[in-house]
Amino acid sequence: MARVAGGLWQNLIAVQVYGANTGVGKTVVSTLLGRHFTRRRGKTRWNVSYIKPVSTGPSDEADERYVRRYAGHPVSTLFKYSEPVSPHIAARDGKFVPNNEVLVQRLFGKLKANARACAMSRGEMGFTLVETAGGVLSPGPSGTPQADIFRPMRMPVILVGDHRLGGIASTISACESLLIRGYDVDAVVCFDDGGKYENSKYLKGHFETMGISCFELPWIPDMEKCTEDEEIGLMKTYYDDESRAGPTFNLAGRIIDQHSQRLKDMKSMAPRTKNVIWHPFTQHKSIEKADDILVFDSAYGDYFQAKHTSNSIQSVEQKAESPLLFPAFDGSASWWTQGLGHGNPQLALAAAYAAGRYGHVMFAGATHEPALTLAERLLKGLENPRLTKVFYTDDGSTAVEVGIKMALRASCKRYDWDGSTEDVGILGLKGSYHGDTIGAMDASEPCVYNKKVDWYRGRGYWFDFPTVKMSQGRWTVEPPAVLKEDFGPSEYFEELDDVFDLGTRGHSPRYEQYIERVLDSLVKEQGRKFGALVMEPVILGAGGMLFVDPLFQQSLVRVVRRYNFASTSNTLEDENTWSGLPVVFDEVFTGLYRLGRFSAASFLQVHPDISIHAKLLTGGLLPLSATLASDSIFQAFWGDEKSDALLHGHSYTAHPIGCHVANTSLDQMQALSRGGLWRQYQKSWTTKATETSRGGPLAIHTDGSRAWSMWSKNTVMRLSHHPRVDSVIALGSVLAVSLVDKSGSGYTSTAAAGLRDSLLNDVAEDKVRVHSRVLGNVLYLMASMKTKPSHLTAVEDALLEKLGKA
Amino acid sequence: MARVAGGLWQNLIAVQVYGANTGVGKTVVSTLLGRHFTRRRGKTRWNVSYIKPVSTGPSDEADERYVRRYAGHPVSTLFKYSEPVSPHIAARDGKFVPNNEVLVQRLFGKLKANARACAMSRGEMGFTLVETAGGVLSPGPSGTPQADIFRPMRMPVILVGDHRLGGIASTISACESLLIRGYDVDAVVCFDDGGKYENSKYLKGHFETMGISCFELPWIPDMEKCTEDEEIGLMKTYYDDESRAGPTFNLAGRIIDQHSQRLKDMKSMAPRTKNVIWHPFTQHKSIEKADDILVFDSAYGDYFQAKHTSNSIQSVEQKAESPLLFPAFDGSASWWTQGLGHGNPQLALAAAYAAGRYGHVMFAGATHEPALTLAERLLKGLENPRLTKVFYTDDGSTAVEVGIKMALRASCKRYDWDGSTEDVGILGLKGSYHGDTIGAMDASEPCVYNKKVDWYRGRGYWFDFPTVKMSQGRWTVEPPAVLKEDFGPSEYFEELDDVFDLGTRGHSPRYEQYIERVLDSLVKEQGRKFGALVMEPVILGAGGMLFVDPLFQQSLVRVVRRYNFASTSNTLEDENTWSGLPVVFDEVFTGLYRLGRFSAASFLQVHPDISIHAKLLTGGLLPLSATLASDSIFQAFWGDEKSDALLHGHSYTAHPIGCHVANTSLDQMQALSRGGLWRQYQKSWTTKATETSRGGPLAIHTDGSRAWSMWSKNTVMRLSHHPRVDSVIALGSVLAVSLVDKSGSGYTSTAAAGLRDSLLNDVAEDKVRVHSRVLGNVLYLMASMKTKPSHLTAVEDALLEKLGKA
Repeated sequence: MARVAGGLWQNLIAVQVYGANTGVGKTVVSTLLGRHFTRRRGKTRWNVSYIKPVSTGPSDEADERYVRRYAGHPVSTLFKYSEPVSPHIAARDGKFVPNNEVLVQRLFGKLKANARACAMSRGEMGFTLVETAGGVLSPGPSGTPQADIFRPMRMPVILVGDHRLGGIASTISACESLLIRGYDVDAVVCFDDGGKYENSKYLKGHFETMGISCFELPWIPDMEKCTEDEEIGLMKTYYDDESRAGPTFNLAGRIIDQHSQRLKDMKSMAPRTKNVIWHPFTQHKSIEKADDILVFDSAYGDYFQAKHTSNSIQSVEQKAESPLLFPAFDGSASWWTQGLGHGNPQLALAAAYAAGRYGHVMFAGATHEPALTLAERLLKGLENPRLTKVFYTDDGSTAVEVGIKMALRASCKRYDWDGSTEDVGILGLKGSYHGDTIGAMDASEPCVYNKKVDWYRGRGYWFDFPTVKMSQGRWTVEPPAVLKEDFGPSEYFEELDDVFDLGTRGHSPRYEQYIERVLDSLVKEQGRKFGALVMEPVILGAGGMLFVDPLFQQSLVRVVRRYNFASTSNTLEDENTWSGLPVVFDEVFTGLYRLGRFSAASFLQVHPDISIHAKLLTGGLLPLSATLASDSIFQAFWGDEKSDALLHGHSYTAHPIGCHVANTSLDQMQALSRGGLWRQYQKSWTTKATETSRGGPLAIHTDGSRAWSMWSKNTVMRLSHHPRVDSVIALGSVLAVSLVDKSGSGYTSTAAAGLRDSLLNDVAEDKVRVHSRVLGNVLYLMASMKTKPSHLTAVEDALLEKLGKA
Repeated sequence: MARVAGGLWQNLIAVQVYGANTGVGKTVVSTLLGRHFTRRRGKTRWNVSYIKPVSTGPSDEADERYVRRYAGHPVSTLFKYSEPVSPHIAARDGKFVPNNEVLVQRLFGKLKANARACAMSRGEMGFTLVETAGGVLSPGPSGTPQADIFRPMRMPVILVGDHRLGGIASTISACESLLIRGYDVDAVVCFDDGGKYENSKYLKGHFETMGISCFELPWIPDMEKCTEDEEIGLMKTYYDDESRAGPTFNLAGRIIDQHSQRLKDMKSMAPRTKNVIWHPFTQHKSIEKADDILVFDSAYGDYFQAKHTSNSIQSVEQKAESPLLFPAFDGSASWWTQGLGHGNPQLALAAAYAAGRYGHVMFAGATHEPALTLAERLLKGLENPRLTKVFYTDDGSTAVEVGIKMALRASCKRYDWDGSTEDVGILGLKGSYHGDTIGAMDASEPCVYNKKVDWYRGRGYWFDFPTVKMSQGRWTVEPPAVLKEDFGPSEYFEELDDVFDLGTRGHSPRYEQYIERVLDSLVKEQGRKFGALVMEPVILGAGGMLFVDPLFQQSLVRVVRRYNFASTSNTLEDENTWSGLPVVFDEVFTGLYRLGRFSAASFLQVHPDISIHAKLLTGGLLPLSATLASDSIFQAFWGDEKSDALLHGHSYTAHPIGCHVANTSLDQMQALSRGGLWRQYQKSWTTKATETSRGGPLAIHTDGSRAWSMWSKNTVMRLSHHPRVDSVIALGSVLAVSLVDKSGSGYTSTAAAGLRDSLLNDVAEDKVRVHSRVLGNVLYLMASMKTKPSHLTAVEDALLEKLGKA
């Protein structure tokens, strides 16, 4: 899809005219509007033009002449085909077929030129009609429905209704298709057939209850028995009269009003937001002026449509022709959620289908198809023989609370501890973060996020661990500073994949002895009790994109599973029963293809007893989470008393919309994971596929894939050599750059903030602008599961440029 | 909307045939299918019939003859109009216009008769085609789009595509309109035009990527120059050949396969669910067999479509003709969420629009229109001058966590307490419940929900309180047993509204003295610290639908606001600054029209400092919540350090879909609150509007409305006299019946379970079946905001009948 700005200019109104079907009078409406604006009285002079992006057949040529004759303003057609059929057919057989991106960029260029022309002539406003071909979803030359092709610019729509028998249905359906794609329909227009089918009357009533203005235009003169000259005369009169009369005047007024309202909203949204919104994770004192708040008009694919602010550097000349919006690459994947692109029409339709079939239906003691299908799909996809049950909640934090409740109950029950009076903590890793509700917070060590939360009580012990990073062109496994003596010097690996080659790396006596020593001190010496091991596998997200040595996490699980945490014997009923402590993997960030695989646990070759999923679960549309558990966990809640049960359940538990969207998303992501795009990325990371750094055989992973990233190996290498860069990691869709920070202040570091700001604000128009997030001195970037290489290359180039030449 | 069963029978396949437009060949498809099934070879004999619910114009009469002639099976038309226009026009001018309910019931009756006929003749399967008129959204006689009229039965759809120029667009749009309404499209069919527009080819590709089968049917013979006899001959040959040939055969096979799959799913869903789903708030040991799990096929309006189980008592004869599904009134409003009916097409479209415009966009440091509009709307609607800021989270529990974090920080900061080391609790009411995450749990007193949650630590003090109930025909304010001495005897009120007439009731010295005494003991004597007052205004939901005396809640707020909780002086900067302790109202259950008003706080005439909303916020579609706070709360997080901020924020914070659906829902609910339906309900509760029990003037409430309920005053009265009923409450859409329970076991009581089961299972077909939930000995019922009186009357009748004659 095209990286292009939204179609909103200060001094140019650009609307697209769609028809509910062919033959409904789109060109008549365009001509009426064109003529109206050409002759419109008032202070404003209007510079009117008409663009037909694609025309097919001789009748379309005639349309052009027609508009020119009756409206009297310039007409331009971007792509012409002579056959009178749908553009996707007309464009075959050796003719030039513009891809969607080329078509949109060409259209954008025309509109920009119009905006520039108006800006040059003071006091003039532009009005450009973009007339589409056929119906709303008629295929363009590439075969994509045209409403999808033009979606990146999201220009307001005038929908011309169908006045014929059946036209009520086709007009409403056409409008619904536009709305599903996130368009604003400024007006529906329908010719008044003088009382035969009365479509215009019905449509007026229908659309007005939806808040969409609807206009009845007077019938086109009957010209059946006219000569050509008579016809021209009749139509001239019609346009003369009607372009000035009530309905056209009102329609034009509506278009102008909607444009003004849009400008007004764009201007007022930041200050109004500053008044009423309390932002998440935000020190409001740092929002000095309203312009510090980014205003999103919409989003499509990988890009936000954001409002230009005074923060953005723009020349006066640029301003005149520039739209008010700019596309910004969504570099945090909207807080790690986005996987299938913003404004994805399939996901929108999936959400609507489930809403239409169910709304929400209560889930206690009941079931429905989307929730059941999703549960079965997750259990299958995780390929973890331990997991048998799925519990739904609303977000990562609630899913972690459930996971902790499950694990603690299981261990307290087996070890006969009274959790309500005894302190039973969890084991985890330093820098871990599991969510913002108190229970999830309590599972993390004290840190900046929780230190001023009055009810926070860190309950557990968090291990130091060795990290993986690329530094100076080498993949390095580096022990934490405090454990240099225990773990020895850093290890180096030629390929990222070698780090994950746990078969070759073998068990680590150093890691295991260290972990046992710590546990002995905690459990045997201090008498502390622990009820679960809770970890984010592979990468700790909020803690600063810390890439943990997978061998250490594997070792930790191995030791915990054989360790005696209580005097009660630790016997196994079968290999899927938990031992030592229940192992809980928080895959909220790392799971479901974020790191290139269905499950991040597979990198560790570990089967957790509880597995937690959210974020990408719905492909980036809405909140839903799942906590999966083994049968030996489930059994801990089996009993005669209701109070023995897991008495947890949010009102919208397993809401059908979320579950159905999740099924649709997982379908799409699974297809992508096997498709050509991913193979292309994977190939670029396995150039040395025939040898490993140790000369041994290739590592075989659960899902058969080697570790790889959507970010280019070459860029990762270059970044790692950059003097401002301390180290870099890349895996799946994630890239994280740790900047040299002499203050050493961690989360409160401002080392990366300048880079973040320059990526967003200080870019020439032909360069990509990037919205990114930082965690202290770490700037990270994330792609969706379907981002194309050309877009990532542009982002990488911007990043390297902003970092400065090495 | 009609209370009717879903259109799924064991031995009858009922499909509805929709056209993408008029003139696309619906009748040809119906005839091909009819003829195919009439002559289909194989073990099964097919009993084929054809129903046209509405026909208009002579050509439709011709259609009937046509089907009869070529397909050879019975044809029945339910409503005929002679004009060849849309049914909503044809049905005017004194002709009989069936309302939607009558139309659907008539159609259902026909289908049931067909099912009975098949059941009577062993081994026969029924195949009934229901051919609609015009396009998918063409208006029916009542003016409602027919896809909405027939939605309650949700029969599978065969969509006939448009083979003409523009037909690709209209076919896809028509299909999208069906999906938005929750229909399953079993097949799209399109005539192959022999290579002119190639619509069928394109559509096949398009729909197959969506998982919808698409069939190309051979072109209808050219009959332009034929005599009538020749024409008949040609068509006979066409139908003879084509009804047996590949495409029709495959289409029929698809229809049969989809039907079998539906039956299989219906059968397998409960056992599969038992295997993989961990239900919320459920003791799984109590699910003895899979049939104990309710299987929901879908839902519409106030009704679930649930699968019949062996739990339902049905005679063999009933079984033969009954569909596999039955409509069950959603008596818990799907855990108190549902407000605008299941499968609401406007909400589905709103969800799709926001998904299409944004997907999800990150909200830290950014803004978008739906979230901003919703914030402004909530602040306006609550009419609470203290509230200035809105913080979004995902559900009631997370919103409460945020409310508590806000309140505690504000009080700890002002009183200079160190919340991380000192125990700072909250004040609340006994029996309160605020959610399932640990922080929200900690704000509730120990109870069955939390007693086995290992990390639960009740942090606070919870007051006993007087309750409101109707008992023996009188509204009673009853002191708790332990406080009979403090509070004196019960008070009686003639009208519910009098209980809320706090102006007339005046301040209560007894209440206030008691509260002060308790606080003195806690704070002055025991030295305990409290950081917030947290309450559900008016009704405590999960605690058992406890209706608190509003005067007591008002008194509690008054005392807390003037009490000295710390040595620090309690000075007010202005009247909107919190004093004493921040007052937090949890309106998750009681707010946003559940009790008949925008805010439940207005019943208490109290302005809380923090107000929490969820559930009805999205009209019952998906999770979203909001915590609103005053500026004096907001200021507690203002500082130079990031760590001073409220570091809370879920990934999907302020997700545009939720916010936009919420705006649409609030629009609809606000309109309902001013509309005729609500006035009708209100009127029935204010028959004595000119006098109060005390003879004083009418109470004037913030929003001008008196206390009322959607449940009839007369039924409430009758229930209160019933020997099995201890007491009853009704307010807004809520009715709660407390049954006499000699065991006195509270939440674990089984007194109401039998009533609940008989309401669902043991009902004759013409009576309404009700899905309800119990809380110990309390059975409660809830309507949506738009439920019509006739439906509630039926539910009330069922309730009275199941309770048994008094």
